[in-house]
Amino acid sequence: MSSSNYYDVTTWPTGDPSEDVGEVINSIIADIKERQNASDVNDGGKPGAVIYLPPGDYRLRTQVLIDISFLRIQGSGHGFTSSSIRFNVPEDEWPDLHELWPGGSRVLVDLPELPGNGADPAKGAAFLVERTGSPRISSVEFANFCIDGLHFAPDGSELPAENTYVNGKTGIHVSSANDSFRVNEMGFIYLEHALTIHNADALSIHNNFIAECGSCIELRGWGQASKITDNLIGAGFKGHSIYAENHGGLLVTANNVFPRGASSVFFSGVTRSSITNNRLHSFYPGMVVLERNSSENLVATNHFLRDHEPWTPFLGIDNGLDDLHGVLSVSGSNNSVIGNHFSQIIDSEHIRPEGATPVTIRLREGAGNFVSNNHVVARNVHATSSDDCFEGQVDALLATDAAEALAVTAVLVDPESTRNTILDSGSEAQVLADRAANAIRATPTTHGEA
Amino acid sequence: MSSSNYYDVTTWPTGDPSEDVGEVINSIIADIKERQNASDVNDGGKPGAVIYLPPGDYRLRTQVLIDISFLRIQGSGHGFTSSSIRFNVPEDEWPDLHELWPGGSRVLVDLPELPGNGADPAKGAAFLVERTGSPRISSVEFANFCIDGLHFAPDGSELPAENTYVNGKTGIHVSSANDSFRVNEMGFIYLEHALTIHNADALSIHNNFIAECGSCIELRGWGQASKITDNLIGAGFKGHSIYAENHGGLLVTANNVFPRGASSVFFSGVTRSSITNNRLHSFYPGMVVLERNSSENLVATNHFLRDHEPWTPFLGIDNGLDDLHGVLSVSGSNNSVIGNHFSQIIDSEHIRPEGATPVTIRLREGAGNFVSNNHVVARNVHATSSDDCFEGQVDALLATDAAEALAVTAVLVDPESTRNTILDSGSEAQVLADRAANAIRATPTTHGEA
Amino acid sequence: MSSSNYYDVTTWPTGDPSEDVGEVINSIIADIKERQNASDVNDGGKPGAVIYLPPGDYRLRTQVLIDISFLRIQGSGHGFTSSSIRFNVPEDEWPDLHELWPGGSRVLVDLPELPGNGADPAKGAAFLVERTGSPRISSVEFANFCIDGLHFAPDGSELPAENTYVNGKTGIHVSSANDSFRVNEMGFIYLEHALTIHNADALSIHNNFIAECGSCIELRGWGQASKITDNLIGAGFKGHSIYAENHGGLLVTANNVFPRGASSVFFSGVTRSSITNNRLHSFYPGMVVLERNSSENLVATNHFLRDHEPWTPFLGIDNGLDDLHGVLSVSGSNNSVIGNHFSQIIDSEHIRPEGATPVTIRLREGAGNFVSNNHVVARNVHATSSDDCFEGQVDALLATDAAEALAVTAVLVDPESTRNTILDSGSEAQVLADRAANAIRATPTTHGEA
Repeated sequence: MSSSNYYDVTTWPTGDPSEDVGEVINSIIADIKERQNASDVNDGGKPGAVIYLPPGDYRLRTQVLIDISFLRIQGSGHGFTSSSIRFNVPEDEWPDLHELWPGGSRVLVDLPELPGNGADPAKGAAFLVERTGSPRISSVEFANFCIDGLHFAPDGSELPAENTYVNGKTGIHVSSANDSFRVNEMGFIYLEHALTIHNADALSIHNNFIAECGSCIELRGWGQASKITDNLIGAGFKGHSIYAENHGGLLVTANNVFPRGASSVFFSGVTRSSITNNRLHSFYPGMVVLERNSSENLVATNHFLRDHEPWTPFLGIDNGLDDLHGVLSVSGSNNSVIGNHFSQIIDSEHIRPEGATPVTIRLREGAGNFVSNNHVVARNVHATSSDDCFEGQVDALLATDAAEALAVTAVLVDPESTRNTILDSGSEAQVLADRAANAIRATPTTHGEA
Repeated sequence: MSSSNYYDVTTWPTGDPSEDVGEVINSIIADIKERQNASDVNDGGKPGAVIYLPPGDYRLRTQVLIDISFLRIQGSGHGFTSSSIRFNVPEDEWPDLHELWPGGSRVLVDLPELPGNGADPAKGAAFLVERTGSPRISSVEFANFCIDGLHFAPDGSELPAENTYVNGKTGIHVSSANDSFRVNEMGFIYLEHALTIHNADALSIHNNFIAECGSCIELRGWGQASKITDNLIGAGFKGHSIYAENHGGLLVTANNVFPRGASSVFFSGVTRSSITNNRLHSFYPGMVVLERNSSENLVATNHFLRDHEPWTPFLGIDNGLDDLHGVLSVSGSNNSVIGNHFSQIIDSEHIRPEGATPVTIRLREGAGNFVSNNHVVARNVHATSSDDCFEGQVDALLATDAAEALAVTAVLVDPESTRNTILDSGSEAQVLADRAANAIRATPTTHGEA
Repeated sequence: MSSSNYYDVTTWPTGDPSEDVGEVINSIIADIKERQNASDVNDGGKPGAVIYLPPGDYRLRTQVLIDISFLRIQGSGHGFTSSSIRFNVPEDEWPDLHELWPGGSRVLVDLPELPGNGADPAKGAAFLVERTGSPRISSVEFANFCIDGLHFAPDGSELPAENTYVNGKTGIHVSSANDSFRVNEMGFIYLEHALTIHNADALSIHNNFIAECGSCIELRGWGQASKITDNLIGAGFKGHSIYAENHGGLLVTANNVFPRGASSVFFSGVTRSSITNNRLHSFYPGMVVLERNSSENLVATNHFLRDHEPWTPFLGIDNGLDDLHGVLSVSGSNNSVIGNHFSQIIDSEHIRPEGATPVTIRLREGAGNFVSNNHVVARNVHATSSDDCFEGQVDALLATDAAEALAVTAVLVDPESTRNTILDSGSEAQVLADRAANAIRATPTTHGEA
């Protein structure tokens, strides 16, 4: 036996990895399948392989198709640098920049045909995982390399092309039911969809850097018992940082989700799952949305910060939701919302509808939700912006002094949501709910406060 | 100096790794010890080594004995696939399966002699870590390979052999006091004991896949300051997913623990430790047990789901506990149980003792526990099962609608447990406790509710 | 294209890695810069590189200067063993020890000139990251090797030199603004400063072992959107385990922070950040400090244990704070302190000022903090010590029985802190605060208790 299940794209005889690493990897996969062609030899026979991408620029012109279990694709560097900042620097300054492009073990997604609006996004994927039959494809691992979509494309708006977050490209698309997959230490950038996984079981998405993508993590179809943990994530204004549908037992924890996703976490028909212990930051309402009867979930000890876009190139952009939508919006039953901190730092002149009282937690439909021990801090700021992305954000983040108190509705319960329990999550005046239909204990206040 | 502290089992001259990787690794360890034979040469001398297992099938017929610090054993793939599903597929369908066995960098545990009932489980370990003297053995690391026990064995019951979760095999057994060990990104499957570690200090068990094993993680003897974080774990019905005894300062967090362990987390004489922010799912009562005076622990913001086995091969199996045992059972003092969500989804026809009111949190012995802000959701379902493991589980998980409310005792305090504080964790009727011996504030309800 | 962006320090032609790995790595970096000299070639050009250190002892006599993005420095072993225990073993027993020094892929910091008191600590760094101009240096990664400072130095006190935690040495010092850095699976030991990073954006410090250093993690200057997660950390008595200043959106979670740092977590001017779900253990008051108007932070579901030094060599050492300081001390506004467990296990004879009632949570300055659902357990023990570090600590940790109740002030609100809300965090007698200036709901008690 030799170490022949270890492959290096730079030493493989077929194809040129700098010109088309997709061709190289497909050729390697074909070799693995040819060599590992019997499913039961000495209690084994198909152990899979590892494909290594040393640091380097690898253009991908051919989609990689993965249809074998136990394949690990691995690099030595997640390679993120901000393309968004770079493309918003005047072009005549580019020669002075140390580097223009992301790096590490970097795959440049350059497929000849990309899906347009409404087309199957799988066609635009650098890595497509698809296999029919039984068992479900298992234990595919992606680790520590970079997938870069290179450019965004015009979207018909007045936005510069590089700011649209659309280009038809996907980093990894899994279309078949799968088990025990891992995505660890990866970098994703400038993709319309970073990571889309259908029908996942016991999936782990851990310690990745997924930013400046249209949408970052999308768990589609249905699935169970998965985790999205300890990632740095920030989607574009049209997409979601974390999206899941029809999942049960999903654990979303220890993520630092920064702007500017339309939502930080969006659950549709998700049950018995957890959003706990994350740091969430957004420039719009609808930061966390539980919709389509998402029930029996736990939303606990998260830090929510909703403030304003401070970076000039994206001023005026939003996700279309007004301030009555709720920073956290719940359509579903028997959820628990416990021990969260909300900072709602808004320029009162920008509130929509004009003159409205912004809503922090909104229960829209369902019954039996338990909302307890949430702390809502609301401040009125005069929003400012800066041409410098990093300094603008840090300045805004650190400015807690200048602001004055802002009146908010801490909890709004719509008539379609009943029999909820709301404890210590807002003063008597801050909780708008039918007291006959819901059990409410207002947060105590000192004399003279509401 | 050459890179001679890097070893690859497939290129080592002694032994055949496909026939007996244990012999190969022991020979490598002997080489390390021969070369690194002085403890103080130029302020160093015993840096240890890394042993690499490329993806492949490696039978292990000889137990590996690790008695040197700073040894890292590393593969390129955790290699899990469900053997439980495979062995419950009719054998005539096996030829149609894509693969039959786990993969990745896979160690097939095939020791000639295995301990029977009551024998020392260390004898059945693929990897035994043992060293006397000082200092404690330190910084042994296991990373990203698969340990597969291949088959389970008949246990005298009517269960098919492959469903018994017993075979006398252990993945890694550490019998000596140890410091700063790491187990990361491993896969364990079809072992009676996946990982048993005695007398651990500053141990990290992180981001592993440990499933379809009798017991998964067992911290035995005593220990301190360790962490079990971000793992996917699911034991068999006779064992524990996470077990610890006589540990202090243990952090169990961000784990997704799926069925069917007899318990998800079992603490015996554990103090000043945390079970926080996990997603826990079980088919039986006794999901989390604190026993033998486990005290001053924090159990917070976990999601507990207790429902029924939906997969036909294991119907009728349980852990022997009835529904009065408590989903969470506490024998000990001064623990904190804060902000947890409990979903108790039970077929009322299956409640034992028949007609009983199931208990969610039970305080058995001790004093001074603080139980606050827990949300108990209880639903009566008509349990169904399916021959398809994955679909059966997902369907059951996502079904939140059909159920009706089920009466439960949210908190039951036995007379042997006193001076507890129970706040906002159940309505007046749902908290059964001596009001003179315990301080209780019931969760407010709307009119007409109990 | 060859795999020429992969470097191994043991095969590089310039320098001798065992005598000066700094010279070797600097030579490699020069080679990378020479080869990757254009910033825009085929949409790439500067992908960076990986530098590998196999397990071994590598003395570092020349500081490494990193001024390129996308550089990953990687080993195969974090290599921690307790130098503190070793140096406190009588020297005549050293020949009997299995090993004397840390190991793994180990860098021995042995710079010829070290900064003295008040000098720039960057001069004492093994790895200095510094680059001016734009963009900020990005995606530098440090993974799975050991940085060992070898010895501590006399500090003018009566302490043995090896117990002072000072030597002028730093492991990694980042002095320039940076983006998307990663420090993963590293080991740091016997350094005055393990890891000092200025002006970080989207930094990840994950799954490291940082112990027996003067200070462990220091985030200086300012920064945002970073995470310190899942580490094992323990600083010396003069320094901090985790320190951050002027950061926003920092997530500190899932860490196990053991003694004996002057503080476990120290925030200075930090806003909108989270300290959640950590296990924290200290021998002194001031375990977690929010100072200089640290505001809108979330401190939730942490386990705090404050008890006494049990190891003879450090008896009598402390951080200079008395028991009125607070285990958690808050100067700032609108913070949330929710669902924490505090165990305060003190020998009443050692309380300072003598006869005082120790304070658990202290609100010093600011307004609008929300302190809810915290459980304070206070016990009076007769502190004992042991010559054996590990056994002494474990014995102390596990001893919950012998103790008797100790009167404490669970929450003390200074007059300079107003309009706070304090709920269910102490009995009426345990909360000392101006009831007109703060809203208070005491934890209910049974009859006859205070």
